[in-house]
Amino acid sequence: MAFQLDPVLANDTVALADTNDYAIRLANDKRFPWVIVVPKVASITELYQLDANLQLKIARDTSLLGRELMELFEGDSLNTGALGNVVRQLHLHHVVRFQNDAAWPGPVWGFGKSVPYPPGELEQRVDLLQLSLTIATLP
Amino acid sequence: MAFQLDPVLANDTVALADTNDYAIRLANDKRFPWVIVVPKVASITELYQLDANLQLKIARDTSLLGRELMELFEGDSLNTGALGNVVRQLHLHHVVRFQNDAAWPGPVWGFGKSVPYPPGELEQRVDLLQLSLTIATLP
Repeated sequence: MAFQLDPVLANDTVALADTNDYAIRLANDKRFPWVIVVPKVASITELYQLDANLQLKIARDTSLLGRELMELFEGDSLNTGALGNVVRQLHLHHVVRFQNDAAWPGPVWGFGKSVPYPPGELEQRVDLLQLSLTIATLP
Repeated sequence: MAFQLDPVLANDTVALADTNDYAIRLANDKRFPWVIVVPKVASITELYQLDANLQLKIARDTSLLGRELMELFEGDSLNTGALGNVVRQLHLHHVVRFQNDAAWPGPVWGFGKSVPYPPGELEQRVDLLQLSLTIATLP
Protein backbone atom coordinates (compact mmCIF):
# COMPACT_ATOMS: atom_id res chain seq x y z
CA MET A 1 0.00 0.00 0.00
CA ALA A 2 1.38 3.39 -0.93
CA PHE A 3 1.98 6.07 1.68
CA GLN A 4 -0.74 8.67 1.90
CA LEU A 5 -0.78 11.56 4.35
CA ASP A 6 -3.44 11.16 7.03
CA PRO A 7 -6.39 13.45 6.22
CA VAL A 8 -6.44 15.06 9.69
CA LEU A 9 -2.74 15.88 9.40
CA ALA A 10 -3.32 17.15 5.88
CA ASN A 11 -6.06 19.43 7.16
CA ASP A 12 -4.21 20.81 10.21
CA THR A 13 -0.85 21.44 8.54
CA VAL A 14 0.62 22.85 5.32
CA ALA A 15 3.40 21.42 3.20
CA LEU A 16 6.97 22.60 3.71
CA ALA A 17 8.65 19.87 1.71
CA ASP A 18 8.05 16.51 0.19
CA THR A 19 11.30 14.53 0.13
CA ASN A 20 11.97 10.91 -0.74
CA ASP A 21 11.61 9.90 2.89
CA TYR A 22 9.41 12.54 4.53
CA ALA A 23 6.39 14.74 4.22
CA ILE A 24 7.49 17.83 6.19
CA ARG A 25 4.60 19.97 7.38
CA LEU A 26 4.04 23.18 9.30
CA ALA A 27 1.23 23.05 11.87
CA ASN A 28 -1.18 25.83 10.96
CA ASP A 29 -1.16 27.22 14.49
CA LYS A 30 0.52 30.55 14.97
CA ARG A 31 0.76 30.05 18.74
CA PHE A 32 3.83 27.85 18.32
CA PRO A 33 6.57 27.28 15.68
CA TRP A 34 5.68 23.63 15.07
CA VAL A 35 7.07 21.37 12.37
CA ILE A 36 5.84 17.83 11.85
CA VAL A 37 7.85 15.19 10.03
CA VAL A 38 5.90 12.27 8.61
CA PRO A 39 8.02 9.34 7.43
CA LYS A 40 6.62 8.21 4.09
CA VAL A 41 6.01 4.63 5.13
CA ALA A 42 2.50 3.25 4.80
CA SER A 43 0.56 1.80 7.72
CA ILE A 44 2.94 2.33 10.62
CA THR A 45 2.16 4.00 13.91
CA GLU A 46 5.32 3.71 16.03
CA LEU A 47 8.94 4.74 15.61
CA TYR A 48 10.13 1.21 16.35
CA GLN A 49 8.26 -0.10 13.34
CA LEU A 50 10.58 1.78 10.98
CA ASP A 51 13.45 -0.20 9.53
CA ALA A 52 16.78 0.39 11.25
CA ASN A 53 18.31 2.49 8.47
CA LEU A 54 15.42 4.90 8.33
CA GLN A 55 15.39 5.14 12.14
CA LEU A 56 18.97 6.31 12.12
CA LYS A 57 18.40 8.67 9.18
CA ILE A 58 15.46 10.21 11.03
CA ALA A 59 17.53 10.58 14.20
CA ARG A 60 20.16 12.51 12.24
CA ASP A 61 17.78 14.60 10.15
CA THR A 62 15.43 15.56 12.96
CA SER A 63 18.33 16.44 15.23
CA LEU A 64 19.52 18.96 12.65
CA LEU A 65 15.96 20.17 12.13
CA GLY A 66 15.56 20.75 15.86
CA ARG A 67 18.79 22.70 16.11
CA GLU A 68 17.87 24.88 13.13
CA LEU A 69 14.38 25.60 14.47
CA MET A 70 15.74 26.58 17.87
CA GLU A 71 18.35 28.87 16.31
CA LEU A 72 15.86 30.44 13.89
CA PHE A 73 13.22 31.22 16.52
CA GLU A 74 15.55 31.63 19.52
CA GLY A 75 13.40 29.30 21.59
CA ASP A 76 13.76 28.45 25.24
CA SER A 77 13.12 24.72 24.82
CA LEU A 78 12.44 22.29 22.02
CA ASN A 79 9.62 19.82 22.53
CA THR A 80 9.96 16.73 20.38
CA GLY A 81 7.59 13.83 20.47
CA ALA A 82 5.74 11.06 18.71
CA LEU A 83 2.36 10.43 20.35
CA GLY A 84 -0.18 9.03 17.92
CA ASN A 85 -3.13 8.95 20.31
CA VAL A 86 -5.35 11.03 18.04
CA VAL A 87 -3.79 10.62 14.60
CA ARG A 88 -2.39 7.11 14.43
CA GLN A 89 -0.11 7.62 11.41
CA LEU A 90 3.46 7.97 12.68
CA HIS A 91 4.45 11.64 12.81
CA LEU A 92 7.17 13.45 14.74
CA HIS A 93 6.52 16.78 16.38
CA HIS A 94 9.14 19.53 16.75
CA VAL A 95 7.75 22.47 18.69
CA VAL A 96 9.78 25.53 19.66
CA ARG A 97 8.68 26.64 23.09
CA PHE A 98 9.00 29.96 24.88
CA GLN A 99 8.64 30.72 28.56
CA ASN A 100 5.93 33.20 27.64
CA ASP A 101 3.99 31.04 25.20
CA ALA A 102 0.34 30.18 25.79
CA ALA A 103 0.86 26.62 27.05
CA TRP A 104 4.17 26.97 28.95
CA PRO A 105 5.31 24.88 30.77
CA GLY A 106 2.67 22.31 29.77
CA PRO A 107 2.69 20.41 26.49
CA VAL A 108 1.06 21.87 23.36
CA TRP A 109 -0.79 18.69 22.40
CA GLY A 110 -4.45 19.04 23.17
CA PHE A 111 -3.90 22.56 24.54
CA GLY A 112 -6.73 24.96 23.69
CA LYS A 113 -7.69 25.63 20.09
CA SER A 114 -5.20 26.15 17.29
CA VAL A 115 -4.98 29.67 15.86
CA PRO A 116 -4.47 29.55 12.08
CA TYR A 117 -1.94 31.93 10.53
CA PRO A 118 -3.57 34.75 8.56
CA PRO A 119 -3.03 34.02 4.82
CA GLY A 120 -0.10 36.38 4.16
CA GLU A 121 1.64 35.34 7.37
CA LEU A 122 1.26 31.66 6.53
CA GLU A 123 3.01 32.09 3.19
CA GLN A 124 5.79 34.14 4.78
CA ARG A 125 6.33 31.51 7.45
CA VAL A 126 6.44 28.71 4.88
CA ASP A 127 8.94 30.68 2.76
CA LEU A 128 11.14 31.33 5.78
CA LEU A 129 11.18 27.68 6.78
CA GLN A 130 11.76 26.41 3.27
CA LEU A 131 14.78 28.70 2.98
CA SER A 132 16.11 27.99 6.48
CA LEU A 133 15.69 24.28 7.07
CA THR A 134 18.24 21.91 5.62
CA ILE A 135 15.82 19.03 5.83
CA ALA A 136 13.39 20.88 3.52
CA THR A 137 16.02 20.79 0.74
CA LEU A 138 16.68 17.04 0.94
CA PRO A 139 16.02 15.09 -2.27
CA MET B 1 31.53 18.66 35.08
CA ALA B 2 30.35 15.16 35.89
CA PHE B 3 26.84 14.02 35.08
CA GLN B 4 24.47 14.09 38.01
CA LEU B 5 20.79 13.17 37.87
CA ASP B 6 18.51 16.18 38.23
CA PRO B 7 17.05 16.21 41.78
CA VAL B 8 13.44 16.53 40.56
CA LEU B 9 13.89 13.51 38.29
CA ALA B 10 15.60 11.66 41.12
CA ASN B 11 12.62 12.38 43.36
CA ASP B 12 9.86 11.50 40.88
CA THR B 13 11.40 8.28 39.54
CA VAL B 14 13.19 5.15 40.73
CA ALA B 15 16.25 3.49 39.24
CA LEU B 16 15.84 0.64 36.77
CA ALA B 17 19.41 0.60 35.53
CA ASP B 18 22.57 2.62 35.46
CA THR B 19 24.52 1.86 32.30
CA ASN B 20 27.61 3.49 30.84
CA ASP B 21 25.46 5.83 28.77
CA TYR B 22 22.14 6.11 30.57
CA ALA B 23 20.34 6.45 33.84
CA ILE B 24 17.15 4.46 33.17
CA ARG B 25 14.30 5.34 35.52
CA LEU B 26 10.71 4.32 36.17
CA ALA B 27 8.31 7.19 36.81
CA ASN B 28 6.73 6.51 40.20
CA ASP B 29 3.23 6.98 38.82
CA LYS B 30 1.08 3.88 38.61
CA ARG B 31 -1.36 5.55 36.21
CA PHE B 32 0.99 4.88 33.28
CA PRO B 33 3.87 2.49 32.46
CA TRP B 34 6.46 5.24 32.01
CA VAL B 35 10.19 4.81 31.54
CA ILE B 36 12.59 7.74 31.36
CA VAL B 37 16.03 7.49 29.79
CA VAL B 38 18.54 10.12 30.86
CA PRO B 39 21.72 10.26 28.77
CA LYS B 40 24.64 10.59 31.16
CA VAL B 41 26.02 13.77 29.66
CA ALA B 42 26.40 16.79 31.91
CA SER B 43 24.76 20.13 31.21
CA ILE B 44 22.75 19.41 28.08
CA THR B 45 19.09 20.08 27.55
CA GLU B 46 18.34 19.10 23.93
CA LEU B 47 18.74 15.94 21.86
CA TYR B 48 20.66 17.83 19.17
CA GLN B 49 23.36 18.71 21.69
CA LEU B 50 24.39 15.06 21.97
CA ASP B 51 27.31 13.98 19.84
CA ALA B 52 26.33 12.16 16.68
CA ASN B 53 27.39 8.69 17.85
CA LEU B 54 25.37 8.88 21.03
CA GLN B 55 22.37 10.24 19.10
CA LEU B 56 22.37 7.17 16.91
CA LYS B 57 22.94 4.81 19.83
CA ILE B 58 20.00 6.37 21.64
CA ALA B 59 17.82 6.07 18.54
CA ARG B 60 18.59 2.34 18.39
CA ASP B 61 18.33 1.64 22.10
CA THR B 62 15.15 3.60 22.71
CA SER B 63 13.50 2.07 19.68
CA LEU B 64 14.06 -1.38 21.16
CA LEU B 65 12.94 -0.13 24.57
CA GLY B 66 9.73 1.21 23.09
CA ARG B 67 8.96 -2.04 21.32
CA GLU B 68 9.60 -4.07 24.47
CA LEU B 69 7.44 -1.81 26.63
CA MET B 70 4.56 -1.99 24.16
CA GLU B 71 4.80 -5.78 23.96
CA LEU B 72 5.10 -6.20 27.73
CA PHE B 73 2.11 -4.02 28.58
CA GLU B 74 0.09 -4.59 25.40
CA GLY B 75 -0.42 -0.85 24.97
CA ASP B 76 -2.54 0.92 22.40
CA SER B 77 0.02 3.63 21.64
CA LEU B 78 3.53 4.57 22.72
CA ASN B 79 4.14 8.22 23.56
CA THR B 80 7.77 9.20 23.24
CA GLY B 81 9.06 12.67 23.82
CA ALA B 82 11.74 15.01 25.06
CA LEU B 83 10.24 18.21 26.46
CA GLY B 84 12.41 19.81 29.09
CA ASN B 85 10.08 22.68 29.97
CA VAL B 86 9.99 21.80 33.65
CA VAL B 87 13.14 19.72 34.20
CA ARG B 88 15.78 21.11 31.87
CA GLN B 89 18.17 18.14 32.01
CA LEU B 90 17.74 16.13 28.80
CA HIS B 91 15.51 13.12 29.43
CA LEU B 92 13.50 10.94 27.08
CA HIS B 93 10.01 9.78 27.98
CA HIS B 94 8.53 6.43 26.92
CA VAL B 95 4.93 6.12 28.06
CA VAL B 96 2.68 3.18 27.24
CA ARG B 97 -0.81 4.50 26.64
CA PHE B 98 -4.20 2.80 26.74
CA GLN B 99 -7.48 3.97 25.31
CA ASN B 100 -8.95 3.68 28.80
CA ASP B 101 -6.13 5.40 30.71
CA ALA B 102 -6.77 8.52 32.76
CA ALA B 103 -5.35 11.05 30.32
CA TRP B 104 -6.30 9.47 26.96
CA PRO B 105 -6.10 10.84 24.31
CA GLY B 106 -4.27 13.83 25.80
CA PRO B 107 -0.60 13.79 26.81
CA VAL B 108 0.47 12.63 30.28
CA TRP B 109 2.84 15.51 30.93
CA GLY B 110 1.27 17.93 33.38
CA PHE B 111 -1.86 15.79 33.61
CA GLY B 112 -3.31 15.66 37.12
CA LYS B 113 -1.26 14.38 40.03
CA SER B 114 0.99 11.36 39.90
CA VAL B 115 -0.14 8.32 41.89
CA PRO B 116 2.86 6.57 43.49
CA TYR B 117 3.01 2.77 43.39
CA PRO B 118 2.37 1.15 46.77
CA PRO B 119 5.71 -0.16 48.09
CA GLY B 120 5.30 -3.85 47.18
CA GLU B 121 3.92 -3.00 43.75
CA LEU B 122 6.81 -0.65 43.05
CA GLU B 123 9.39 -3.36 43.72
CA GLN B 124 7.47 -5.87 41.59
CA ARG B 125 7.26 -3.42 38.72
CA VAL B 126 10.97 -2.63 38.94
CA ASP B 127 11.82 -6.35 38.98
CA LEU B 128 9.61 -7.01 35.96
CA LEU B 129 11.20 -4.20 33.97
CA GLN B 130 14.74 -5.11 34.92
CA LEU B 131 14.10 -8.65 33.72
CA SER B 132 12.22 -7.65 30.58
CA LEU B 133 14.05 -4.69 29.11
CA THR B 134 17.17 -5.31 27.07
CA ILE B 135 18.34 -1.75 27.63
CA ALA B 136 18.40 -2.37 31.40
CA THR B 137 21.05 -5.06 30.89
CA LEU B 138 23.42 -2.90 28.83
CA PRO B 139 26.90 -2.44 30.25
